[in-house]
Amino acid sequence: MSYCFGVDVGGTTIKMGLFELNGELVDQWEIITRKEDHGSMILRDVAESIIDKMTKKDIEKSDVVGIGIGIPGPVSEEGTVPGAANLGWGSTDIKGTLEDILHIDVTVGNDANVAALGEMWKGGGKGYTNLVMVTLGTGVGGGVILNGKILAGAHGSAGEIGHIGVYYEETETCGCGKKGCLEQYASATGVVTLAKRRLAQDDVPSSLRQAAHISAKTVFDAVKEGDTVAMEIAEQFGKYLGRALANISAVVDPDVIVIGGGVSRAGTVLINYIEKYFKDAVFFGNRNTKFAMAELGNDAGIIGAAKMVL
Amino acid sequence: MSYCFGVDVGGTTIKMGLFELNGELVDQWEIITRKEDHGSMILRDVAESIIDKMTKKDIEKSDVVGIGIGIPGPVSEEGTVPGAANLGWGSTDIKGTLEDILHIDVTVGNDANVAALGEMWKGGGKGYTNLVMVTLGTGVGGGVILNGKILAGAHGSAGEIGHIGVYYEETETCGCGKKGCLEQYASATGVVTLAKRRLAQDDVPSSLRQAAHISAKTVFDAVKEGDTVAMEIAEQFGKYLGRALANISAVVDPDVIVIGGGVSRAGTVLINYIEKYFKDAVFFGNRNTKFAMAELGNDAGIIGAAKMVL
Repeated sequence: MSYCFGVDVGGTTIKMGLFELNGELVDQWEIITRKEDHGSMILRDVAESIIDKMTKKDIEKSDVVGIGIGIPGPVSEEGTVPGAANLGWGSTDIKGTLEDILHIDVTVGNDANVAALGEMWKGGGKGYTNLVMVTLGTGVGGGVILNGKILAGAHGSAGEIGHIGVYYEETETCGCGKKGCLEQYASATGVVTLAKRRLAQDDVPSSLRQAAHISAKTVFDAVKEGDTVAMEIAEQFGKYLGRALANISAVVDPDVIVIGGGVSRAGTVLINYIEKYFKDAVFFGNRNTKFAMAELGNDAGIIGAAKMVL
Repeated sequence: MSYCFGVDVGGTTIKMGLFELNGELVDQWEIITRKEDHGSMILRDVAESIIDKMTKKDIEKSDVVGIGIGIPGPVSEEGTVPGAANLGWGSTDIKGTLEDILHIDVTVGNDANVAALGEMWKGGGKGYTNLVMVTLGTGVGGGVILNGKILAGAHGSAGEIGHIGVYYEETETCGCGKKGCLEQYASATGVVTLAKRRLAQDDVPSSLRQAAHISAKTVFDAVKEGDTVAMEIAEQFGKYLGRALANISAVVDPDVIVIGGGVSRAGTVLINYIEKYFKDAVFFGNRNTKFAMAELGNDAGIIGAAKMVL
């Protein structure tokens, strides 16, 4: 029997999966991300955990066709990153380091891109080979898959959809240092920003004014109950995201756009607002682009990482 | 000796080139595009012209490795178009039709994408494999080259950069039916629109007010002479185009952006206005993206077409 490993390195935990070559997930587990000492133990920990699993499962090195690994940073085609702030890393040769320890082929990708590949393979983008994924979480992540392969970009910075400029009059600064990025309106905190701004405009009654704590979930729950102020906030969210996705489509022309991340749990109501503005703004040649919800949740990373080596 | 042909089908003429396999252009010529009868004679004319050239040059079919052809319409990976308005075509199987007549391998691409490939091979993008090309002509065309290959897109509509939305308050309609497309401000006629709107705003003196006829050239010539109103128009042009290119970079992360088309003849002054807003709007991971001027002019199409088969 032959196997591969899929690894998804996050700022808190490292998710790992053992896969058969048909893509079946045989085992999955997590280890802690040790960020001390500039994250110098992370790759060694990954290697040890893989060796440990192979020993326990009685798997030989010759049975492992490869290891795929997703990293929260810009990854070059050679498997290096210039740095990954969430891990404490400076310039790191991920592929070289792991292969030196394990003597197994390693393929490295950016974590958002790898998750997009996972969704293409077994999730919301199943059956398609050209896909754009947008992850609406704490930030807005993105991944572009073309002809079944991750688009890494010339500087490892393709698919940085959260940092598309959508509002050039913005006064607050995005985490990236720019002003008016999509992430400032379409992330979980972005929806809250939109809500606070709308509520400050006037005194129109809204259930959101009684909420002890406003979150993206509060807003979309209120939308489902027909709260008109919440619906205006959702329109604003849909406008920024739908128009940005229309522009992305004019550039890469995907089969399908997959929406994931915590904010997307709002479900169909959310897609409706996005699609409304997408359809209004999209070039006619891209009008048949489909929308789908992500299906793999937190497993997208290990599944996509495994797919990189298969 | 082995050869290939590069063909660039336009609405008025069809440009053709005979190439050696090292890329040297041995001969180039043009034929008229006969659009009568829904353009039904166009592909036959192309085939006859190729046969004619082979006869005159004493080239055998076995000496020709392939024919590349650029078409002004969305081209599928299978070499078909759903339609090409400029040629009078409905759904057309270009590859199948030409191969049936010639019994030589045919590769088909969208004309703007093919020109981008040409600029990558022998023009402004030489030495790079990831490139975005923007052609500022009557309209705004675009092409995306990734890992040395044309990105066609799931619906043959990738690289439609002219139809990225940049101004959502626009009241005039673009040729595509939308409002506020980049093409409405960055094409030759777009620059004239910006100029007329600026001049109508007030009575600030400008050499443009004395011009019998305002064109993109008039505007950029006035910029070079330090005309402040013309410089404001150029700022507006640079803002729309520079910001759009920054957003494109966040999605596909090219090595280089190549600027071509008639408007680009204004030269360095034009690039300066674009780069100013690009740098201001670009995500830090894409900040090292280079700018270059297109170098091949009207030959980009046949050169890129030849490259498709080499």
